[in-house]
Amino acid sequence: MRYLHTAVRVTDLDAALEFYIGKLGLIELKRFNGTKRPCTIVFLAAPGDENAQIEVVWYWDDKERAARGAFSHIAYEVDDLYATCADLMAKGAVIAHPPRDGFMAFVKSNDGISFELFQKGGPRAPAEPWASMPDQADW
Amino acid sequence: MRYLHTAVRVTDLDAALEFYIGKLGLIELKRFNGTKRPCTIVFLAAPGDENAQIEVVWYWDDKERAARGAFSHIAYEVDDLYATCADLMAKGAVIAHPPRDGFMAFVKSNDGISFELFQKGGPRAPAEPWASMPDQADW
Repeated sequence: MRYLHTAVRVTDLDAALEFYIGKLGLIELKRFNGTKRPCTIVFLAAPGDENAQIEVVWYWDDKERAARGAFSHIAYEVDDLYATCADLMAKGAVIAHPPRDGFMAFVKSNDGISFELFQKGGPRAPAEPWASMPDQADW
Repeated sequence: MRYLHTAVRVTDLDAALEFYIGKLGLIELKRFNGTKRPCTIVFLAAPGDENAQIEVVWYWDDKERAARGAFSHIAYEVDDLYATCADLMAKGAVIAHPPRDGFMAFVKSNDGISFELFQKGGPRAPAEPWASMPDQADW
């Protein structure tokens, strides 16, 4: 299990990057556009410390953007995502977003902090019971 | 500059650790009690990935606890805290909590995310203009 990033949602991407890069001194590692809910996602890190990242998410839709708080989630990579989710479920945790795509899941703490879990090495073949399991909570 | 931790405030420490340790599989690295605003602070990390930590803060006072949201801040260590804060100020950033103690400062992004900055190697001698500078914002 390895820490990946803490994600924040921002209301103004240019102003956000002016702070994170221009003031705080982080560097941009990569960026891409989300498709389901159109957004721009930028990954940042301190120079020389690229393994611990900040994910900055900026939604293109004004309503979507305004509805989101500034903190989003904390992400970890795990060796076996299906086994981790099965273990979490057995222990009574809420799998807010099951790993339907074989790659990504969300689980929530009792205080409502969202943890994103990624399959190390990339997506696996979709498998039951996850592939047909609906979301259990907001994530 | 190096990533240290993401901090969350919890309403029930036992229930929180039952999730973070008992369900998610993180391990406890250290804990101590805060004094100014009495609280218990526990540092957690994934086994083998101890450099990227989660700080869990639990206030003893019911009112203090209830008034706090679940997300708190993201922390980095810097080589020269005074130089970093001077640079941030020169660039127009809000030094919410100046490094009066020579060790710790808080700066806020335009979206209200708090970043904690620590002096690498431990506290330095208090120095102006920081030693007498009041807080500039909540942090």
